[in-house]
Amino acid sequence: MLLLTFEGIDGSGKSTQARRLRQFLEEEGHDTLVVREPGGTELSERVRSLLLEPDFNVHPMAELLLFSAARAQLVAERIRPALEAGRIVICDRFYDSTTAYQGAGRGVADPAWLQDFHQRVTEGLTPDRTYLVEVDAATARARRSEDGAPNDRMEAAGDDFYERVADAYDALATSAPERIVRLDGHQPIEVLHEQVKADVVSQLADRGTPLSGTGSSDT
Amino acid sequence: MLLLTFEGIDGSGKSTQARRLRQFLEEEGHDTLVVREPGGTELSERVRSLLLEPDFNVHPMAELLLFSAARAQLVAERIRPALEAGRIVICDRFYDSTTAYQGAGRGVADPAWLQDFHQRVTEGLTPDRTYLVEVDAATARARRSEDGAPNDRMEAAGDDFYERVADAYDALATSAPERIVRLDGHQPIEVLHEQVKADVVSQLADRGTPLSGTGSSDT
Repeated sequence: MLLLTFEGIDGSGKSTQARRLRQFLEEEGHDTLVVREPGGTELSERVRSLLLEPDFNVHPMAELLLFSAARAQLVAERIRPALEAGRIVICDRFYDSTTAYQGAGRGVADPAWLQDFHQRVTEGLTPDRTYLVEVDAATARARRSEDGAPNDRMEAAGDDFYERVADAYDALATSAPERIVRLDGHQPIEVLHEQVKADVVSQLADRGTPLSGTGSSDT
Repeated sequence: MLLLTFEGIDGSGKSTQARRLRQFLEEEGHDTLVVREPGGTELSERVRSLLLEPDFNVHPMAELLLFSAARAQLVAERIRPALEAGRIVICDRFYDSTTAYQGAGRGVADPAWLQDFHQRVTEGLTPDRTYLVEVDAATARARRSEDGAPNDRMEAAGDDFYERVADAYDALATSAPERIVRLDGHQPIEVLHEQVKADVVSQLADRGTPLSGTGSSDT
């Protein structure tokens, strides 16, 4: 019923915001589905393991196509059926990640071609709202190392790479202001959450679905 | 130095022809590389195993993207370096398979869009010659069952599917007569081999590379 995506560079805090939103919507009784990309189906998780393996040789175009294959499967198998059943779907990353990371970060393809490509991959599915959590590359790097987890193949890239990715996100937000909501990721988690919450509540009201449904949720 | 691809429906006899050509070129002392699609690199073989697993749920668009990801990796990692080193590369399937199988067979995308897409995936690499081994769907099915091997997920499709694939190959051959050589796959193996051999010898002569090089080969 409503497709909400979270975007931003690794360490931006977007996954935390996706989880907080889910918690809020569940408390309000909404039927939600939360998925992360790449993943969410048997095939997509197998593709994910290929993509995140450290030291694995993956050509940039192959990377773009593997992320997109995982997305095609996820949309067809889970997202579209959930939307058709009236659920709220929250995606931790969606096709804007491919435009920013593979398109601009790796320099594989231009945004105009990718926009058409994404529409083919998702069979025309566009997010209703995209929350872009913006932080500078140095802040994101510091947060990633606080995490303590060893870097996977994607996260091993340097600040230059993340700056190109952040610039691409910035250009996307400028080109689609009706869809992409910019959030200042340097703010405290709860402040950001209030901003996301206010926007989602207003989206639901616009669709004649005020808060308090009676659903369940899963991941 | 020369990129030669073999195409046709499963059971057409194209793999036999690819092997026979390789044998001939090796005997003549040419440095050859033979690859099969999907496969030929560590990443591509992992993708192959996903694609051929029986009973695995793969959305048609995901299938198209996975084949293309495997191809992008194979071209970048093996085919292009081999061509640059002056070798003759023989591919058992290449991007025409995607146009015929996923584009037409599964109905995922139109040939015009796919033509541009393939050029992006291979960074502009086009086969010098493509040998299309044409047989009717019933003959191909009989040959596949003689094989004795259990059908994988791709080969489990019915005659209707293979007829759409064969029609798409036919349309491709009509649209690119300067590249695609049609061969009547109902002929005996050695007769077909002589036709392929004659064309390859003439291609090499056109490039000022008559037979008898001094190379080695691998797969």
